[in-house]
Amino acid sequence: MIDSGILIILSGPSGSGKDTVLGALMQRRSDVRVSISMTTREPRGQELDGVHYYFVSRSYFEKKIAEDRMLEYAEYAGNFYGTPKDPVDEMLRAGNAVFLEIEVQGAEKIRQRYPDVISIFLLPPSMAALEARLRGRNSEDEETLQHRLVIAREEIRRAAEYDYIVMNDTVENAVDRIETIINAEKQKTCRNKTMISEVINNV
Amino acid sequence: MIDSGILIILSGPSGSGKDTVLGALMQRRSDVRVSISMTTREPRGQELDGVHYYFVSRSYFEKKIAEDRMLEYAEYAGNFYGTPKDPVDEMLRAGNAVFLEIEVQGAEKIRQRYPDVISIFLLPPSMAALEARLRGRNSEDEETLQHRLVIAREEIRRAAEYDYIVMNDTVENAVDRIETIINAEKQKTCRNKTMISEVINNV
Repeated sequence: MIDSGILIILSGPSGSGKDTVLGALMQRRSDVRVSISMTTREPRGQELDGVHYYFVSRSYFEKKIAEDRMLEYAEYAGNFYGTPKDPVDEMLRAGNAVFLEIEVQGAEKIRQRYPDVISIFLLPPSMAALEARLRGRNSEDEETLQHRLVIAREEIRRAAEYDYIVMNDTVENAVDRIETIINAEKQKTCRNKTMISEVINNV
Repeated sequence: MIDSGILIILSGPSGSGKDTVLGALMQRRSDVRVSISMTTREPRGQELDGVHYYFVSRSYFEKKIAEDRMLEYAEYAGNFYGTPKDPVDEMLRAGNAVFLEIEVQGAEKIRQRYPDVISIFLLPPSMAALEARLRGRNSEDEETLQHRLVIAREEIRRAAEYDYIVMNDTVENAVDRIETIINAEKQKTCRNKTMISEVINNV
C-alpha cells in the first residue's frame, strides 16, 4: 500500500545514543535499514569494511563525487566521509525506512536535495546525563570531553531545524517514539497516492 | 513538555465512520476533544444543544461572523453552519488534540487560516464497503444513496489535499492509526521548543 520507503535523518550529539537506538530499532523491525558511510580514512581497531564504513581509496571516492553518486560528503582532517547514493536508493525502492546517521551540516545538505526527507534529532534528557554517558565511555581525556560538551550544546541549539525531537531518556522509550514517527509517516498522503486511487477505482 | 495542543481536521465521505471513530478515540484518550459546530437550523429528533450542535439564532451567528469568532462557516439551504473559534482555542490552550469534523471545503478554509493545522482523511476500504454502510443505515431512498456515492467519490479524489490518509477497515485499526498520528505530531519540533531549551539550560 505504501508507495515507497522513507528516508530519515537521525542526528544527535556524541553520546546521545544514536547507534544504540538504531541497533534496538533494527532488532524490532525488519523494515529498518541504516545507511553505511563511505570514507577514505584507514580502518581502526575492530572496524570492518561494509559494516562500520565502506573503506575506499581517494580516487574511488572522487570518482563517486564526479558521477554524482554521493548524497552528501565532507572532508575532515584530510579524509573524505560521505553517504553513497546507490545503496540508499535500493533500500528505499524495497520499501524500507532508511536511516542516515549524519551530522547537522550533512543533514542540511540532504534536506536541500531531498525535500521529502524526514529528520529526527535525538535529544539527551539533560546535559548532565550526556556528560555521564560520555564519561562512562572512559575513552577520552578531560579536555576532549569538555570540547564534546561545547559542541553538543551547539548541535542541540540546531535541533530546531529538525522535523521531530526524540528524547532518549531510555532506549526503549526512544525506540517507541521513533517507531511511532515511522508509522505515522507511512500514513502521510504523499506515500499513499495509490491507496486513494485503488479505493476509487476498485468499485 | 508539549508547548500546546494540536488542531486536527477529520474529513471523510458520509458513511466513512467519522463519528464512530472519534467516539472510540475519545473513550481511549482523555486528551482528545471534538469541536461542536454552530448552526442556525432547528434541532431535529434527538439532537441536543451543546452536544450535536450549538443551536443559535441567525442574528447571533451573524454577530459571531462580524466579530471574527468563526474559524470557518458556510450557508446551506438557507442556514448557517460553522466552527466557533473560542471553544477550540480554549481546548487547545489546555493541551488537547482538538478535532474538527468538517467537509473538504471547510478544511481548505481552515488550512489557509491555520497553516499548523493537521488534516486527516478517513478513507473507506472500498466503494463497495461504503455503499454497504450507507445501506445499513436504512434511512434513505435509492436516489439519495446513489447521490451520496457520487459525492463520496469526488471527496475521496480530494483526499490528496490532506496530510494523512487513515483507512477505516475496522474502527480499532482506524483509532490506532489516528493515535499514532497524534503521538508522532506531539514529537514535532514546532511543539517542543521548550524541551530543547530546557535541556540546554538545566545544565
